[in-house]
Amino acid sequence: MIPTITAFESSPDRGQGLARDMRVRWALEEAGQPCDVRLVSFKAMKEPAHRALHPFGQIPTYEEGELVLFESGAIVFHIAQHHAGLLPQDANARARAIMWMFAALNTVEPPILELQTAKFTEGDKPWTGERLPLIKDRIRHRLGELAVRLGEADWLDGAFSAGDLMMVHTLQRLRPSGLLDEYPSLAAYVARGEARPAYKRAFAAQLAVFTGKPPAG
Amino acid sequence: MIPTITAFESSPDRGQGLARDMRVRWALEEAGQPCDVRLVSFKAMKEPAHRALHPFGQIPTYEEGELVLFESGAIVFHIAQHHAGLLPQDANARARAIMWMFAALNTVEPPILELQTAKFTEGDKPWTGERLPLIKDRIRHRLGELAVRLGEADWLDGAFSAGDLMMVHTLQRLRPSGLLDEYPSLAAYVARGEARPAYKRAFAAQLAVFTGKPPAG
Repeated sequence: MIPTITAFESSPDRGQGLARDMRVRWALEEAGQPCDVRLVSFKAMKEPAHRALHPFGQIPTYEEGELVLFESGAIVFHIAQHHAGLLPQDANARARAIMWMFAALNTVEPPILELQTAKFTEGDKPWTGERLPLIKDRIRHRLGELAVRLGEADWLDGAFSAGDLMMVHTLQRLRPSGLLDEYPSLAAYVARGEARPAYKRAFAAQLAVFTGKPPAG
Repeated sequence: MIPTITAFESSPDRGQGLARDMRVRWALEEAGQPCDVRLVSFKAMKEPAHRALHPFGQIPTYEEGELVLFESGAIVFHIAQHHAGLLPQDANARARAIMWMFAALNTVEPPILELQTAKFTEGDKPWTGERLPLIKDRIRHRLGELAVRLGEADWLDGAFSAGDLMMVHTLQRLRPSGLLDEYPSLAAYVARGEARPAYKRAFAAQLAVFTGKPPAG
């Protein structure tokens, strides 16, 4: 059964791949699984039909028969559990890969979300100029710790996993701020993720929504 | 094999149960599993020995033989996977329970963390008084959506699950702000969680660390 996911009809990042549907698209490409994509407008996302799928009125959602999921972390985990390529077989390594999914979403992403909120929701407030350096320092604190743990490894724990997928996509959101480039090993880590063929296919598919042109190839 | 978890030697919430070890303690009690608790000081949390377990220098951690985990979400998930009582057997219901774990940690908790950061990290800044209502409105937005989805149900999706455990604990952090009481159905949901015998045992165990007295009973 081919699942259906939802994505922005009009991507606020203009096809940079920063919306959370990219995580699901990438996971499906790593797993070699096709999907149908239904595009939703900002208006439709907040209406009852979409909220029946996603109580917080966001994208992505995932529909597969009677199963309806929201939350990119949960969707990627579901895909990873049912297809090879995203979670190791060894039980302990698998638990650690799942741990990195949670770490990306609950330890690394919150200060990054705070930076986005400051820019987009409080961008017109008189305090934002003074606050941004404080938020950036909180992000640097986490990035420094992450860089120490990554060390010279290619991925966070052995082979590429769903944990890396979530972490790479979380870190990508920092690129416009310049913060990622302050940590060359993390910038290289993100670049390794972006170099994966599955990533490239997923990126092209989400970009095509914005450009209106089908992906090349 | 009895796992070892870590918790604050000196709890910043003075035993209110808001630290993240409470999630792990509660999950272990729901699963009927004992654990050893190693207390760590704020200083020791940032030293290499603890960072080898937790790269972000926090609690809780979970050690079970050769497996070392951090991130409360990952630890609770690991416990839930290996013991009955926290995840349904039906595959779709199980995927949805895991979805609610991610929703608690990545959709509901981030604005709550922002409120804590504003109070404790930026509490002395001139803008914080004006910012707090903005942050509270962002939290209200999420709480309103969550209350609609919960409706008149006892738990988020059928029987109590690890998803409820994470959501209840996430919402508890709002109690000092008074925001939770603005949503009576969510306050009642949290109270249902707190009424569970497993919760009470876990709460007493973490309180005993603060009071220095062993839990009664």
